Amino acid sequence: MNPIISGPDGIEVPVRRIPLSNGEPPIEVYETSGPQGHDVRGGLPPLRQPWIEARGDTQWVAPAYQGSDIDLIPPEMRRAQVLRGTGRATQMHYARRGIITPEMRFVAARENCDPEFVRSEIARGRAILPANVNHPESEPMIIGRNFLVKVNANIGNSAVRSSIDEEVEKLQWATRWGADTVMDLSTGEKIHATREWILRNSPVPIGTVPIYQALEKVGGKPEELSFDLFQQTLLEQAEQGVDYFTIHAGVLLRYIPLTARRVTGIVSRGGSIMAKWCLAHHQESFLYTRFHEMCELLSRYDVAISLGDGLRPGSIADANDAAQFAELETLGELTRIAWEHDVQVIIEGPGHIPMHLIKENVDRQLECCREAPFYTLGPLTTDIAPGYDHITSAIGAAMIGMYGTAMLCYVTPKEHLGLPDKNDVKEGMIAYKIAAHAADLAKGHPGAQARDDALSRARFEFRWEDQFNLSLDPQRARSYHDETLPAAAAKTSHFCSMCGPQFCSMRITQDLRRYAAEKGLEEEAALAKGMQEKAAEFRMKGGEVYS
Amino acid sequence: MNPIISGPDGIEVPVRRIPLSNGEPPIEVYETSGPQGHDVRGGLPPLRQPWIEARGDTQWVAPAYQGSDIDLIPPEMRRAQVLRGTGRATQMHYARRGIITPEMRFVAARENCDPEFVRSEIARGRAILPANVNHPESEPMIIGRNFLVKVNANIGNSAVRSSIDEEVEKLQWATRWGADTVMDLSTGEKIHATREWILRNSPVPIGTVPIYQALEKVGGKPEELSFDLFQQTLLEQAEQGVDYFTIHAGVLLRYIPLTARRVTGIVSRGGSIMAKWCLAHHQESFLYTRFHEMCELLSRYDVAISLGDGLRPGSIADANDAAQFAELETLGELTRIAWEHDVQVIIEGPGHIPMHLIKENVDRQLECCREAPFYTLGPLTTDIAPGYDHITSAIGAAMIGMYGTAMLCYVTPKEHLGLPDKNDVKEGMIAYKIAAHAADLAKGHPGAQARDDALSRARFEFRWEDQFNLSLDPQRARSYHDETLPAAAAKTSHFCSMCGPQFCSMRITQDLRRYAAEKGLEEEAALAKGMQEKAAEFRMKGGEVYS
Repeated sequence: MNPIISGPDGIEVPVRRIPLSNGEPPIEVYETSGPQGHDVRGGLPPLRQPWIEARGDTQWVAPAYQGSDIDLIPPEMRRAQVLRGTGRATQMHYARRGIITPEMRFVAARENCDPEFVRSEIARGRAILPANVNHPESEPMIIGRNFLVKVNANIGNSAVRSSIDEEVEKLQWATRWGADTVMDLSTGEKIHATREWILRNSPVPIGTVPIYQALEKVGGKPEELSFDLFQQTLLEQAEQGVDYFTIHAGVLLRYIPLTARRVTGIVSRGGSIMAKWCLAHHQESFLYTRFHEMCELLSRYDVAISLGDGLRPGSIADANDAAQFAELETLGELTRIAWEHDVQVIIEGPGHIPMHLIKENVDRQLECCREAPFYTLGPLTTDIAPGYDHITSAIGAAMIGMYGTAMLCYVTPKEHLGLPDKNDVKEGMIAYKIAAHAADLAKGHPGAQARDDALSRARFEFRWEDQFNLSLDPQRARSYHDETLPAAAAKTSHFCSMCGPQFCSMRITQDLRRYAAEKGLEEEAALAKGMQEKAAEFRMKGGEVYS
Repeated sequence: MNPIISGPDGIEVPVRRIPLSNGEPPIEVYETSGPQGHDVRGGLPPLRQPWIEARGDTQWVAPAYQGSDIDLIPPEMRRAQVLRGTGRATQMHYARRGIITPEMRFVAARENCDPEFVRSEIARGRAILPANVNHPESEPMIIGRNFLVKVNANIGNSAVRSSIDEEVEKLQWATRWGADTVMDLSTGEKIHATREWILRNSPVPIGTVPIYQALEKVGGKPEELSFDLFQQTLLEQAEQGVDYFTIHAGVLLRYIPLTARRVTGIVSRGGSIMAKWCLAHHQESFLYTRFHEMCELLSRYDVAISLGDGLRPGSIADANDAAQFAELETLGELTRIAWEHDVQVIIEGPGHIPMHLIKENVDRQLECCREAPFYTLGPLTTDIAPGYDHITSAIGAAMIGMYGTAMLCYVTPKEHLGLPDKNDVKEGMIAYKIAAHAADLAKGHPGAQARDDALSRARFEFRWEDQFNLSLDPQRARSYHDETLPAAAAKTSHFCSMCGPQFCSMRITQDLRRYAAEKGLEEEAALAKGMQEKAAEFRMKGGEVYS
């Protein structure tokens, strides 16, 4: 299923190899599902462990925090010690010193580009390589607009329902369908243990929103949050191996009144928690005032920061408003602070935005945040289709990807309505793989079109099995085809059920192509001449093309 | 379900009225499903009959052609006589003479604009009002980029399967979900009778591709097609009441070699049929050389022409190529000929186009065809997702709609794989209503945002039933909500299952809003002052916002 290929530097990276018929060479595509066949109780093999330890910038220490739900973590998964940097241990730190890490080489092989280019993009902050030293199971990947557009899938239990097993299954399911990172947005009980299960079994970087857990620790009362408590939560999660934290540090007290006359006010959970804290204390939040200290901590574990857009618009009416863009300015200020600490940063974006206002979001973000990677939720391009918001938002996601967003946060059909189940995760992932790939094509990303071309050639030549296997969801493509033409013979038939055997539009061109090849015709003029002979031939045969 | 409202000129038009709770005024939305509760054997009431006859530009004649499958048409549906224009009987003809027809007034009331504006847009060819004098059952609608973006649904049996009953059911199903026009693409047996059933039961304009039926008449051999046979087929269908014909008159002999090195050659059925004819005869097709005569015929019935893009690209690799744009030039030439005959024209467009090449299609089409309305299939923005091409193409459709396409031809999940069933028709329609509405929003179409705003207000105020009823698919929105929070009480609960009761982000803004209203605060400064008092209040209460 997932062969390993060797990159130019001897680094082995996973790919999905799709064999084709008719003498066509196989197509190799980017693969996110990680090593297969491991017991979830033991977790995945620690691929990066030797690279991390070889750098000599970390030491083993006893974990500062254990969850109260430790009994839910199987003994073979528990770790007596965790890594902590003796100083700055981030990929950005090394990139800026001119050092190409094995993680960067892995990414270069995976993205089919020069390792030095990977290094330089990370060094200037235009890309991040999320890689917590305590998450050695992750296969390095990169988020930046000069690389393939990435997709994040959100999972996580909530106060209302779902279990650890379900979340691990959703993680595996999401990466099977191409999730490049997964955010664990759990807010319910068993939050620490759920995260441990997810991290030990995740081949992709894991993101969280630590304020959710911090809030649990103060009984759900935002005004009782404090910097110390939050910092302890960051430490707990950094030790577990979380690769990036969403931190809503841009919600300033003076911005809150700007949301008062919005149609949908504050729709970010983290944003509303911090807004409440600001109101209750009538001062700027500790996320903003103590940002330096947090960066210092995160730099020791190489946890990247995803600066949350706590004031993102939650409706078309509120798009691109004063509150949203005021916060963006602050996110730019915070980006520069993180970079002072060599902490990798991405910037979260909206939300709900009509199509004509999408580009302004990217332009302003790139300017305010000096090209730090943009990471957007959708955006949804209309509010009127709950139940189909994977589609309303795939439209916005494809466009914002084309304009330069580096990673898209998926939206499932359950958005606004309920918790996504397995099928929703799949539907959301496919919609977003479509959006990301459409953006790669529109950006002219090298090699992106190879899969489209291979599939279209297969389609033109009626190689049905190749067409199915090259598609994002081979099972569905095959089953839809079977509904109309179930016979196995139809898989090789030279027509499809849309037109039927007498009307197939593709066959005439095949005939024309074959004729040109036989005659060795290559120029338009020669082809035109061929048309004349062809006409005579056609008439003599009485129309054999469709027969 | 579908109340009738009176427009400013006393014209009654159908709308869907959505009642809301909490004192909100009802929202009225455009409605396409037509009069309800009629027996399909008798068809719909002939709404436009008195308007048509009052113009005195037609006469009753015995139909020139009857289908061989006449026994499949029930006696009560059969018509002994049909209307034929004594001269030009088109809406464009009247518009150019400065006359506002009842159809134009109906459209103006439906689109909430000035009837004179409707007339002027039709007169200059920038919009069409498809309205065959033999389809009096249709409720007038308009296709033009200064009106709401429209959606066409394709139905039709094929050689492989499906029945008349199924097609009528698909028609009703498509208009229920918002289809503005329906194309009957039947290619199999019973083609005449199927069309009669569809026309007599359709409240929306019906389009066809007459070359499909003409080809049946010559046993599927394109080279045996002739102008006379084709003209007879046009007459047969014009008498039945078809409102617009797709005619692939732009496929010229010299363009065919331009497709020879494409990845997917010619993918339009009509295009490939005509290419074969051109090759077999080595001369330009009768569709091109006899275009004047066809226009003369169609002007007597007010059948609009949809100039088919027989050389549209069928893959990303072939997008915006020489063949496609060469044909577009010819479509511009033919547009001017049709207009000489007062025949209404729209121009069909691609197909498969990556996002960055979409705008060029609209720009060139508007220029070549002097702003005649553009009518595009998708376009699909990638080739790699068969089974999900309603999504790959909704992305392109939304964008091309924003750039100025007047009508979008839907794509179902079965595209490239099989024949759409009822569920596929619905999935395709919803995806395209999303695309069309997103385009209306992006174009700033007057009033388009009212439904979004109403839904977002309902969402913010936890009026769940209002939110469901305002959505494109109330049943699905409701059922997705029920999966997580099935209790009836949850329909009025002040949180949703995504976040749970402790984390709801929308509540804090409500609290802030209420506070501002109580204090009569309207200015930012006053609000900021309010924040101070608010902080004290919050602290005293110990955080009541979420309680």
